[in-house]
Amino acid sequence: MIKSDFGNRIRTLRLKSGLSQEKFALKIDMDRTYYSSVENGKRNISLTNIQKISDGFNITLEELFKGL
Amino acid sequence: MIKSDFGNRIRTLRLKSGLSQEKFALKIDMDRTYYSSVENGKRNISLTNIQKISDGFNITLEELFKGL
Repeated sequence: MIKSDFGNRIRTLRLKSGLSQEKFALKIDMDRTYYSSVENGKRNISLTNIQKISDGFNITLEELFKGL
Repeated sequence: MIKSDFGNRIRTLRLKSGLSQEKFALKIDMDRTYYSSVENGKRNISLTNIQKISDGFNITLEELFKGL
């Protein structure tokens, strides 16, 4: 399912970055509990928030969706 | 801006497919006026609807976001 696949993808990227959920959410100016629920596959996140996340990882959207 | 960049991307892909907005929206079971507004960069489309579109083009999400 895409919501959980996306959540797993961003969890992998965040862990690679070495940041906690809290620190990463703060970095991209996103509510921490909202970010957490996205990682947990519980949210149907919108395009602009998806871009916030790719920007936070300094990667393109294409790279963010790699393998999805 | 990501909403208009995304809209332009899917317009390009749809034109390549040879389908009208109406036929493509019908194919992916999306409201025609909603789909049209996404192509026009007016909507902050959600992940599950983004996936509907990539499925409609028979491409991966990675491919859908190519160059964005």
